[in-house]
Amino acid sequence: MKKLPFRVEEYEERVRKVKERMDAAGLEVLLVVDTANMNYLTGYDGWSFYVHQGVLVGLDSEQPIWYGREQDSNGARLTTWLDEESIKGYRDEYVQSRYMHTMSFVAGLIRERGWEEKRIGLEMDNYWFSARCFQVLQEQLPDATLLDATNCVNWVKTIKSPAEIAFIREAARICERVMKVAVETIAEGVWEKDATASVVQAQIAGTEEYGGECPAIFPIMPSAERTSTAHLTFDPERRYQNGDVVLLELAGCRRRYHAPLSRTVFLGKAPEDLKKIAAVVVRGLNQTLEFIEPGVTAEEVEARWRHSLKGTGVEKPSRVGYSFGLNYVPDWGERTVSLRPGDKTILKPGMTIHFMPGIWLEEYGFECSEPFLVTEAGSEKLIEFPQQLFEKS
Amino acid sequence: MKKLPFRVEEYEERVRKVKERMDAAGLEVLLVVDTANMNYLTGYDGWSFYVHQGVLVGLDSEQPIWYGREQDSNGARLTTWLDEESIKGYRDEYVQSRYMHTMSFVAGLIRERGWEEKRIGLEMDNYWFSARCFQVLQEQLPDATLLDATNCVNWVKTIKSPAEIAFIREAARICERVMKVAVETIAEGVWEKDATASVVQAQIAGTEEYGGECPAIFPIMPSAERTSTAHLTFDPERRYQNGDVVLLELAGCRRRYHAPLSRTVFLGKAPEDLKKIAAVVVRGLNQTLEFIEPGVTAEEVEARWRHSLKGTGVEKPSRVGYSFGLNYVPDWGERTVSLRPGDKTILKPGMTIHFMPGIWLEEYGFECSEPFLVTEAGSEKLIEFPQQLFEKS
Repeated sequence: MKKLPFRVEEYEERVRKVKERMDAAGLEVLLVVDTANMNYLTGYDGWSFYVHQGVLVGLDSEQPIWYGREQDSNGARLTTWLDEESIKGYRDEYVQSRYMHTMSFVAGLIRERGWEEKRIGLEMDNYWFSARCFQVLQEQLPDATLLDATNCVNWVKTIKSPAEIAFIREAARICERVMKVAVETIAEGVWEKDATASVVQAQIAGTEEYGGECPAIFPIMPSAERTSTAHLTFDPERRYQNGDVVLLELAGCRRRYHAPLSRTVFLGKAPEDLKKIAAVVVRGLNQTLEFIEPGVTAEEVEARWRHSLKGTGVEKPSRVGYSFGLNYVPDWGERTVSLRPGDKTILKPGMTIHFMPGIWLEEYGFECSEPFLVTEAGSEKLIEFPQQLFEKS
Repeated sequence: MKKLPFRVEEYEERVRKVKERMDAAGLEVLLVVDTANMNYLTGYDGWSFYVHQGVLVGLDSEQPIWYGREQDSNGARLTTWLDEESIKGYRDEYVQSRYMHTMSFVAGLIRERGWEEKRIGLEMDNYWFSARCFQVLQEQLPDATLLDATNCVNWVKTIKSPAEIAFIREAARICERVMKVAVETIAEGVWEKDATASVVQAQIAGTEEYGGECPAIFPIMPSAERTSTAHLTFDPERRYQNGDVVLLELAGCRRRYHAPLSRTVFLGKAPEDLKKIAAVVVRGLNQTLEFIEPGVTAEEVEARWRHSLKGTGVEKPSRVGYSFGLNYVPDWGERTVSLRPGDKTILKPGMTIHFMPGIWLEEYGFECSEPFLVTEAGSEKLIEFPQQLFEKS
């Protein structure tokens, strides 16, 4: 009994849009191995992506073809909209074998369909398409033209449908609860592990009506000197101390759609320079959000942010945001829109972007972010949570 | 202030062993991009692996060279044993750029060291080494000999040191608590989301003395018909019902070392055939564990297991186990030893293997596993947890 998060027509519409993009790029076949892209086109949802699996989209084929490990094919039957003949399981001997490679199986599927001389697009710079995958396809399909189609699906996915936005709003409700738990739980003397445990508990428990899911990034909750850099998390043997800065980079996740948010807690009385940075960032954040509307480019958003910092002494040299949505580990970002100099992407209604100006100084960091939706009229903040440095004594 | 989980001498010993293996394979330089392998050699620990990063090991170089995003290089300073000159941050412009690729930066590091005509080993079939990474290195290093070195570090890592085994034992203590929480919480009428939330809470809270960490696989806790396949998890909108089978594939994680375990719960009175399968699996599990000692091969272990099933009507066609240890998402397995026909690996003291004979039938599944350590004398179960089908009324 299938219970899909979207109507079949929505999946069909996604396939149509991907085919339009394929056609425009001169791709007759597309091999999709990105876990989120597989889910986007078929609904497939399982923690099986540590082995090779994927979806083949052919311009001349109505349904995508799912392939994966035989033991996961019942998972495809339960979680995708595909018919039985579009689900192809491979024998377990392929898994992490020193003699056989799954891409030989995939080449076989391609030959079965008569696609072996076609122009085939590949997600060349993707976690799930290794150098060896490419080599085996080259060996097995000497008459095909193999082309780079990295992010072909990602760009289609960047514009969300109303049904997708509804899930992101549900993820946002979860995220508000999660952030509240974090800010309330973190206190002098509390084990960092216990605060983090409460946060992951809240991420899955969700609301009264629905559960959350495991976000694509584990809670990033560094304290003290660990806040001077990006991407560290809690110390499993430490209690929070007076004088700690704690950065919180958290998300709610619903049906694999995310709503991310960053905030900062200070235990005790915050130093004046940190308070000053907080004020500068919050002001710049809101000035930038007001500036956003359909038609402005990603780099113009970043320029507006940089303009707001002028004369304040605060600097932020890396990108200040990225589009987000449907994803699996290791990242909830979509690898399409980046708010940074040089990104000419024109913002359009339905894009969801995490404006995330993280500041990491020598001694500590400060983070306050906002995920927003580009609307017809401008932009809409997806989460309501106080924009401030949370001082807790 | 660095606080490494191991003594510097232990990291140096690991590098010596990897160099021995490189030398035997005729590799003068090794590019390590696997997150767990990076951690193994340097200590580096951060959720930054969604962008390209890695470690270069040269036979003629004492320390490995860490490279990663500039904003993560303070993380390398805090979490690795490397000197300042071995930490190389790249500019943020490289991140997910349509014009620049991080492998150009890496090729620059290789040229700086005078390694551009060397024999360079690459982790060709690894999540973190995309087809595009390989293409860029080929373009940038035309005089180098690029060779496949997939799992070169993994094989060294497969034999654990006493200090590593100590962490796995701590992870096992966490896993026992986690499994207990799962078996106790799952009951008719309870939301699946709430049981899963309790499990993730326990995974991070750990024990009174130390916290756990985010395991490399999210809790796999399917119920009812979702147990007929591998790798599905809880339903975020469902309560457990009388008659449910619930599979539990969980782990404790400590300093990124895992201890995985599977068990099965039945809500209500279990059907006779499920009880029969449970009895067959548990008997076969213990017969196989008794058989294990240094010197037997991986395929002999699987054969012993298959022998124990003879005449019972139970079949298990895929591999029944794999080595595990230090890891990050998406898998706690090490991709080296597989308990299956054809795997000639001779078991050695210090290997840690998850014997995991999952049975997935049309209607439901049954799982009961044991992680074990190969010792000088035989094998040692790492976890103490009742081996049974847990019937809960």
